[in-house]
Amino acid sequence: MSEHVEFKGYALTDPKKWSDLKVTSFEPKTFTGDDVEIAITHCGVCGSDVHTLTQGWGESHLPLVVGHEIVGKVTRVGGKVAGIKVGDRVGVGAKIGSCMECRACKEGQENYCLEGISTYNSEYPDGIISQGGYATAIRAHQQFVFPIPDEIESRYAASMMCAGLTVYSPLKTYGAGPGKKVGVIGIGGLGHYALLWAKAMGAEVYAFTHDESKIADIEKMGADVIDYHKPLARKLDLIISTRDNYGKDAKGVLDQYLSMLYVHGKFISVGLPDEDSPMPPVHAMSLAMPGCLMGGSSIGNKKEALEMLELARSKGIKPWIEEMPMKDCKKAVEGVKESRVRYRYVLTQDIDN
Amino acid sequence: MSEHVEFKGYALTDPKKWSDLKVTSFEPKTFTGDDVEIAITHCGVCGSDVHTLTQGWGESHLPLVVGHEIVGKVTRVGGKVAGIKVGDRVGVGAKIGSCMECRACKEGQENYCLEGISTYNSEYPDGIISQGGYATAIRAHQQFVFPIPDEIESRYAASMMCAGLTVYSPLKTYGAGPGKKVGVIGIGGLGHYALLWAKAMGAEVYAFTHDESKIADIEKMGADVIDYHKPLARKLDLIISTRDNYGKDAKGVLDQYLSMLYVHGKFISVGLPDEDSPMPPVHAMSLAMPGCLMGGSSIGNKKEALEMLELARSKGIKPWIEEMPMKDCKKAVEGVKESRVRYRYVLTQDIDN
Repeated sequence: MSEHVEFKGYALTDPKKWSDLKVTSFEPKTFTGDDVEIAITHCGVCGSDVHTLTQGWGESHLPLVVGHEIVGKVTRVGGKVAGIKVGDRVGVGAKIGSCMECRACKEGQENYCLEGISTYNSEYPDGIISQGGYATAIRAHQQFVFPIPDEIESRYAASMMCAGLTVYSPLKTYGAGPGKKVGVIGIGGLGHYALLWAKAMGAEVYAFTHDESKIADIEKMGADVIDYHKPLARKLDLIISTRDNYGKDAKGVLDQYLSMLYVHGKFISVGLPDEDSPMPPVHAMSLAMPGCLMGGSSIGNKKEALEMLELARSKGIKPWIEEMPMKDCKKAVEGVKESRVRYRYVLTQDIDN
Repeated sequence: MSEHVEFKGYALTDPKKWSDLKVTSFEPKTFTGDDVEIAITHCGVCGSDVHTLTQGWGESHLPLVVGHEIVGKVTRVGGKVAGIKVGDRVGVGAKIGSCMECRACKEGQENYCLEGISTYNSEYPDGIISQGGYATAIRAHQQFVFPIPDEIESRYAASMMCAGLTVYSPLKTYGAGPGKKVGVIGIGGLGHYALLWAKAMGAEVYAFTHDESKIADIEKMGADVIDYHKPLARKLDLIISTRDNYGKDAKGVLDQYLSMLYVHGKFISVGLPDEDSPMPPVHAMSLAMPGCLMGGSSIGNKKEALEMLELARSKGIKPWIEEMPMKDCKKAVEGVKESRVRYRYVLTQDIDN
């Protein structure tokens, strides 16, 4: 049985006007037995949306709807879907499909599948381009659909799907918890989640920011603020860096971050700079002398997403957000690009079906 | 009671003639209750010796005796020394003292103490400059003195003290063993030990080399040789890189190494380039997309040294070495600089006391 379905979303149509997004119809991927269809109610605004809209990560498909911090209600489930039913409130993050056959998929690291489908701007095997959450609806493989506990409001759950999970995963993987000292560099959407989660996990939490206007907020989030000019030599067990821009005078800055790590400590970058912007070089001595590591992390897997939601539920953790209707997405993406957001914008559905 | 003691060693006296080492007398550190004095019989020749002699790591003290792969017989022990007695055969590696009070020292990571004393070219609190193993004797804190099992000949044990331990430590720390795939980049002194240990630990071992003349040796050491031009995408759990020079056209080479790592895989650099030679920059994407890490490691702690020696004893592992009398140290350090060594030179004592 063939079907013709159209969803609508705020789409980029002209890269020269990166923030002018116009309501546009698009065809979703072919619905299969593993798919969940979701009527979107909320979508957070991520820095990835801006990198993609501005073509910083390369030329995007057009027209393109971005957005991958999605919450909504399930409207349809495929025959193989288990544990999710029509009417459930669920979330979708930055990935929406994977091969389910490689080592990563089999070991529950499906977010690292080399054949993974991103929530927007990826090509499905059937040639359809994935379209994101500034839209009426979306289809996603069940492995990438996360039931939201009743106690967490949709407006709070939305930005957990990417910003929250992206920092939860390395905090969990690298042992944030009682007795551990965790530093967070860059207190924006991701960074503020890193402070909230690390505190909830029982770690001692230190925030690094150049923005004095954020200090009072950071203290309310439960962290101590660190003066960049007096680095904590060999004190931190883990640093989560959300920095995605190192500018031209960044020589030595990574070496300085690394000098704060204790033996076998880890500096984990979750910020993704534009294509033409590598991280500054480090000297092998800066890694060898403290025996430390610098690494990256990319969103998280389903198990981690469910753990994160349970942590948020059980501890009543709420992100700091600003809500606005989806039609204000121009204001939102520009606010992210200009670092005005405190600390995440969440768009609410306003497209007339 | 004051004492006047002199040791003798092959010393650098003129940095312009970096490989002309002349027998010179020097005063050892003041003997204390934690010290062990050792009559040196063997000393391996490490790349660090060359970096130091050529002033690549900065201006060295003069005169300076290098060498930190030392084996010899104990001739004197301090009153606080436990488990080591006069007449024992022992080894000393690249560190010779530490504060014994910081977090690293208390947690058995004494090789990472910020106040650590290197075996040569470090200043002791009493102002004496530490002098290395191309010499008649040395004094070392007991924490940095490792008893050698009877079954391991001194000529084989010597280069284990630095080259062997430097790669053993990250192999152990990062889980080399059955079911794990370990790559080794650069098959020289350190790299050949990495192949031998990783194989003995039960890992699948892959060697990366540009030098075709080493392929037959590498196969005898138990590893498969990898063609650099067909990288193993996402296959390796751990890479030990002994590379200490990245040249000018190295852009992207680290990104290529990282692309071979599986999720949470680790690229550990144990090579230490000259001061003015940082590693090539990497893009944050190269770390984030596989969720991998790049790190460093610096020698190893006493617990690891004893484990390594037990592994060598129980499995009968012998390094591939070339022995020569200490007076041929010029030939040896030049052979290391020009990569002629297969795979470690070991100097034997010839100074007439």
